Amino acid sequence: MSNTLLRALRSSASTSSTAKVGRLPWGVSTIAGVRCMSIPAAGTSGLPDIDTSKLKVNKNTSPKTPPPAKDLKFGHTFTDHMLAIPWNVTTGWGAPQIQPYGPLALDPSSTVLHYAQTIFEGMKAYRHDDGKVTLFRPDMNMKRMNNSAQRIALPTFNGDALLSLIKELVRTDKHWIPREPGHSLYVRPTMIGTQKAIGVGPPSDALLFVICSPVGPYYPNGFKPVSLYGTTEYVRASPGGTGAYKLGVNYAPGILPQKAAASLGYAQNLWLHGPEHHLTEVGTMNMFVVFRKEDGAIELVTPPLDGMILPGVTRDSVLALAREHASGKNRLPNLPEKLVVSERPVTMKEVREASLSGKLVELFGAGTAAVISPVDKIGYLGQDVLIPTGADGMGPVSNPIWAELVGRQTGAIHSEWSVVVD
Amino acid sequence: MSNTLLRALRSSASTSSTAKVGRLPWGVSTIAGVRCMSIPAAGTSGLPDIDTSKLKVNKNTSPKTPPPAKDLKFGHTFTDHMLAIPWNVTTGWGAPQIQPYGPLALDPSSTVLHYAQTIFEGMKAYRHDDGKVTLFRPDMNMKRMNNSAQRIALPTFNGDALLSLIKELVRTDKHWIPREPGHSLYVRPTMIGTQKAIGVGPPSDALLFVICSPVGPYYPNGFKPVSLYGTTEYVRASPGGTGAYKLGVNYAPGILPQKAAASLGYAQNLWLHGPEHHLTEVGTMNMFVVFRKEDGAIELVTPPLDGMILPGVTRDSVLALAREHASGKNRLPNLPEKLVVSERPVTMKEVREASLSGKLVELFGAGTAAVISPVDKIGYLGQDVLIPTGADGMGPVSNPIWAELVGRQTGAIHSEWSVVVD
Repeated sequence: MSNTLLRALRSSASTSSTAKVGRLPWGVSTIAGVRCMSIPAAGTSGLPDIDTSKLKVNKNTSPKTPPPAKDLKFGHTFTDHMLAIPWNVTTGWGAPQIQPYGPLALDPSSTVLHYAQTIFEGMKAYRHDDGKVTLFRPDMNMKRMNNSAQRIALPTFNGDALLSLIKELVRTDKHWIPREPGHSLYVRPTMIGTQKAIGVGPPSDALLFVICSPVGPYYPNGFKPVSLYGTTEYVRASPGGTGAYKLGVNYAPGILPQKAAASLGYAQNLWLHGPEHHLTEVGTMNMFVVFRKEDGAIELVTPPLDGMILPGVTRDSVLALAREHASGKNRLPNLPEKLVVSERPVTMKEVREASLSGKLVELFGAGTAAVISPVDKIGYLGQDVLIPTGADGMGPVSNPIWAELVGRQTGAIHSEWSVVVD
Repeated sequence: MSNTLLRALRSSASTSSTAKVGRLPWGVSTIAGVRCMSIPAAGTSGLPDIDTSKLKVNKNTSPKTPPPAKDLKFGHTFTDHMLAIPWNVTTGWGAPQIQPYGPLALDPSSTVLHYAQTIFEGMKAYRHDDGKVTLFRPDMNMKRMNNSAQRIALPTFNGDALLSLIKELVRTDKHWIPREPGHSLYVRPTMIGTQKAIGVGPPSDALLFVICSPVGPYYPNGFKPVSLYGTTEYVRASPGGTGAYKLGVNYAPGILPQKAAASLGYAQNLWLHGPEHHLTEVGTMNMFVVFRKEDGAIELVTPPLDGMILPGVTRDSVLALAREHASGKNRLPNLPEKLVVSERPVTMKEVREASLSGKLVELFGAGTAAVISPVDKIGYLGQDVLIPTGADGMGPVSNPIWAELVGRQTGAIHSEWSVVVD
């Protein structure tokens, strides 16, 4: 679904979903009828929204000792508490609860288990050197999670209220944030459909829960560029599909292609789309490529948000930093002076030709888990397209941007993107 | 993924998934490297497969009284027992258990809740007039479920063993099959990834479970043709995607488009694909259309299994019956004598032109839940394309085929497709 269509859906909450409609203004077929659609969202339905004042805290009476930071494996260890908020179609959002981390009792007919009614977010809480705990741009996660909910007919909610509750959860378990450099607390908000019935439809019940996992740096021994397999046999997303939303459905289908890439000796998939093999994303990350132009300027390119690309928080941050540098508003040390920032389509033909002519500067993935993930080659149509990498694994654009990003995340650089939790 | 590619994946289990591979036979880019891939499947990995001799039965000591048939709502009522079989990557399939129907305790980090690692099947058990209980072509469900498992990196299994256990479950709860005509027991095998870790990858643990729900006829008051909204804003499936597999991921994204269609006054989506608006599926059913040809022959058309179409059991059954009639091997009463059966692409242009010229005979959906679902109009680009329907709601091709199908399912017509449970 395009952003235009999504906005149109949002701004149209006038008629009830059972209202009969007559002849419609069909002028533009791609958004035909959308103006007349009614997609009621819980948050705007008059039912109770998430209410922070109703929070109940049920402390874990058997807290664990956090394991040594060196033993952490991404996403395998969880803290003592979780946040859970139930929703029902007739009563709205129920009382939030911070409760001991533990199993959910789900009826085997729960719609999430059959029809993949699940959405999630990935965020990180950082412990600064001065002891402060912060989240990085959490408002973007709240907005995106609401967009995801709407796309999959799960209830929407007040993002500020959920964020307040997430802060309370992080405060509750803040001693789980490792003190070691490069470590953080990965925060995973999730919403699932829990209706006990196997019809396909909007669920009558849902559960929003948040769990936290202490994590180490993605590259504990310095940056290590990865190889990509230019994937044309499978797609991650398609026009009219769900690639622009953070839905569970975008992830399970990528596992077989990843195994296939690994068996060919490549670390991840580079998802190519369409007859011209447009570059879209890298594994589960957004993708950037850097070219040297004829006039000597450096161009940082990422595919536009055309409905197939996830609007990543790291993607947006990279673009914002690069644009502020390019405009002179906020110059970043060591970043090339003549920088052009482009959200535009890019094809493998362009990347391959730039590689051969020496005009390819670097190519990297960007996401919450790895922040920046440099790439050193792409297996494409039987040949490897080589990508330059710098001495430290990163290139001349990604390195200064990475330094600024991580500085802002960890508090070394003051920024409004860093939101204080405690 | 195409069937060709799937077969290639299956027949290539020689190298380990970590083996380094050299220069590859890239001749055909769409299956590049596939011959060298190794996708280990649990069922062929040397680990224990599903073992029926290990079945444990834990009877429900508080059985319920089945509700009156007239109160049944599809998929809302479940029987006293369920089947559950755990799987682990190092120990293979564990002991199957028939146990009281009840909640699953799932860790909140379970991969199914985040990444949509779920597959399912839909089958029906019928009670014949002579008291016999049967399943309809259950071997096809077992094969398809294994195909689905492989596509989403869940473990495969011995389909005959699972079918034996499903029969035992149905025998255990056979008094739940309503005695009323047109009723049956809907059987829902499901497999979910249950690894307690939020990395994206093949799960270390999975759970296969089967639940049963007594259901009434889809059309309790006779056939009622439905209207379709020719959907071009959203896609159900794409080339390189997962439309040919029965994965949870294919269902949740269709709910918003269904609500949108309903708000425009149409019952379901007709999923159109590509610039020529090819007809693919109807809601969650396969789709058939019938044309009258120049020479007077009747052509029954359904889209080919091109990787976007679910290989439905009802679809296959309709095709098989129509082909046996056309070849003279098994003539069906009242079905047109000169019948041509085609698996070929069909566009909205062809359907609209046939509607206007009087050459459109009928259009219907086919699936396990409804068996045959006739259509009376398609909202398309601002106009309604009208579809003829017969006096009883069905057309001259779907009606005789429906009668034969239902006869075989309920035992009125003897058939090898009907597999005795008890």
